[in-house]
Amino acid sequence: MSVTSPKGFRAAGVTAGLKASGAPDVALVVNDGPRTDAAAVFTRNRVQAAPVLWSRQAVRDGRLQAVVLNSGGANACTGPEGFADTHRTAEHVAQVLGISAVDVAVCSTGLIGDRLPMPLLLAGVDDAAQSLSAVGGSEAAEAIRTTDTRAKQVVTTSNGFTVGGMAKGAGMLAPGLATMLCVITTDAVTDAGSLQAALAAATRVTFDRVDADGCMSTNDTVVAMASGASGVEAGPGELAAAVRDVCAGLCAQLIADAEGATKEVRVEVVGAADEDDAVEVGRSIARNNLLKCALFGNDPNWGRVLAAVGTTDAAFEPDRLDVAINGVQVCRGGAAGDDRSGVDLGGRDVHILVDLHAGEQTATIWTNDLSHAYVEENSAYST
Amino acid sequence: MSVTSPKGFRAAGVTAGLKASGAPDVALVVNDGPRTDAAAVFTRNRVQAAPVLWSRQAVRDGRLQAVVLNSGGANACTGPEGFADTHRTAEHVAQVLGISAVDVAVCSTGLIGDRLPMPLLLAGVDDAAQSLSAVGGSEAAEAIRTTDTRAKQVVTTSNGFTVGGMAKGAGMLAPGLATMLCVITTDAVTDAGSLQAALAAATRVTFDRVDADGCMSTNDTVVAMASGASGVEAGPGELAAAVRDVCAGLCAQLIADAEGATKEVRVEVVGAADEDDAVEVGRSIARNNLLKCALFGNDPNWGRVLAAVGTTDAAFEPDRLDVAINGVQVCRGGAAGDDRSGVDLGGRDVHILVDLHAGEQTATIWTNDLSHAYVEENSAYST
Repeated sequence: MSVTSPKGFRAAGVTAGLKASGAPDVALVVNDGPRTDAAAVFTRNRVQAAPVLWSRQAVRDGRLQAVVLNSGGANACTGPEGFADTHRTAEHVAQVLGISAVDVAVCSTGLIGDRLPMPLLLAGVDDAAQSLSAVGGSEAAEAIRTTDTRAKQVVTTSNGFTVGGMAKGAGMLAPGLATMLCVITTDAVTDAGSLQAALAAATRVTFDRVDADGCMSTNDTVVAMASGASGVEAGPGELAAAVRDVCAGLCAQLIADAEGATKEVRVEVVGAADEDDAVEVGRSIARNNLLKCALFGNDPNWGRVLAAVGTTDAAFEPDRLDVAINGVQVCRGGAAGDDRSGVDLGGRDVHILVDLHAGEQTATIWTNDLSHAYVEENSAYST
Repeated sequence: MSVTSPKGFRAAGVTAGLKASGAPDVALVVNDGPRTDAAAVFTRNRVQAAPVLWSRQAVRDGRLQAVVLNSGGANACTGPEGFADTHRTAEHVAQVLGISAVDVAVCSTGLIGDRLPMPLLLAGVDDAAQSLSAVGGSEAAEAIRTTDTRAKQVVTTSNGFTVGGMAKGAGMLAPGLATMLCVITTDAVTDAGSLQAALAAATRVTFDRVDADGCMSTNDTVVAMASGASGVEAGPGELAAAVRDVCAGLCAQLIADAEGATKEVRVEVVGAADEDDAVEVGRSIARNNLLKCALFGNDPNWGRVLAAVGTTDAAFEPDRLDVAINGVQVCRGGAAGDDRSGVDLGGRDVHILVDLHAGEQTATIWTNDLSHAYVEENSAYST
């Protein structure tokens, strides 16, 4: 399912031995066409892993025929040798599949700073190529897991074409620098420019607004490939909507599976003068460690929300700020509103609604609480 | 000691009953002159507590005769009523001391959003005024503690004048939105402008570079008062150096007493193109939750350092970054350097040295690790 649900794709996931656990760790997704239009977005971190540097070049011409992904090592901060490893991986995939290396994207996830065990990885590529199947999507989704407790897949079909996606990354709370990888496939007929526009528009309001711990990865990559195998030409709006739905579905799964989290927190900012203000305010709230600890403790500490809003440059007047937590308006006009003891934080879902009363724009940021388990997971990763 | 070490000052700390624990919670520091030059710096949070709004006005003319401080409530986000409470507190202090309310600064610390119990507070002011003593500094320092495990005081004497200081705030890791309050006193003869310049220069490289959890308070206030009682005129450089020493000493105590922290982390950035770059990089590292968890776990995870550097706009080339942790150069030229297993993180002190190789400027940011105890303290504060 997932990336192999659209026509024209095969995938596989195998165990190459990169992970000490013996879990699957190499995935391959191949676009058999007839078209090979492709698009991608990458981390904005200036320290970029070798596979990011490679894939950025590979997708530049708007064409990809395959994506190879490995867990068990990020191949980041590995110098020229690390880049050569990525190049060699792409060449190997190309040779096995009879395609060109510049049509192969590479994604890696895991610990930063260590070289990959190349003989194991290349043997894994051979194995994956032999295992490729039109129903191999779920195996591929399994193989890209790191600390994800489950594989993440979404499929949507509309108007004769299908979009599928898989992702890994335990909601940016993941150890290993929150590495988030995503592959999206579609059998719609489209061109690379339209696909890139759809992907950029989708990630802007989905992956870019998941901010579980504020830490930006060196490896984040979202690749989209279109086979055209449905024969159905997707209108730009149609395609964009379907890609956005798939990204949103994957984001919800990322947040729900965030390592160590006990809450899924939706920070909704309304009444902003512009969308950038709304995003800035939402992000500031989502990154406030004191608030995140309070939520872990089921404490509707709205003062910490206001203090976070106060650190931004957004347009607002402090004495007009309203905050509701799970439907109870605990802050009205910058001061105490309804009794905070009325807020029920017993469940996993938390909705923080902030009204800046400065305009009409809105944005939503998704995050998690800050828990003992987060500290535990992330203090014991590379050792 | 501390704020009463310089000549011309009396202080007191009393129990007014604001804290459920029955610990001291109201402090008063009075400048008996002959001079009343004063200066202050405040939080840059746009959501400012009532006492910050008041004290900013009070110090505008460069004169203060008293500072009243309370723990047990921040009086932040309390609306016009909260401001009236602060005003009334200043008026009461003025009446009791026979001075003008506009020469009284007010500082509060504790939970955001609740009104202060004014009858208790005003009775505490009466009590404090009656208890004022030229050796009352330590009692005042005790009364401003919230979760601080010990009072924080520093005194320095040089060239015939003395500077004393007290502070509260468990290293920005404190619950209650990290409220940091500080009172500095000196018997040097100076003018308000020189004192303000000395204070601003000192806080820029001390309090402003303590960044334990990235959360900016609504109440942060540093007040300085000069009595001139030594009769010694301090040169601007002399005064600035002494004030900086006192601030640096208080910062070291804040970091050492940070709630829940097991490490005191010095992030030193060298080779920066300019000082702003060095500060931005240091702050980004200091705020990286994944790195802070790794340090808690004694894991010299330099990859997380590089990923944090990569999120900044500072001038650097990724393949020229060097990182040393506690003297071991674990990253050289953006890739693995010496064996990370050689890093000893067994003690409390951690030194992270980052060389950007982009210039000659440097900056140091002080922070802590992210521990189970931090989560515990901050998830259980207002409840």
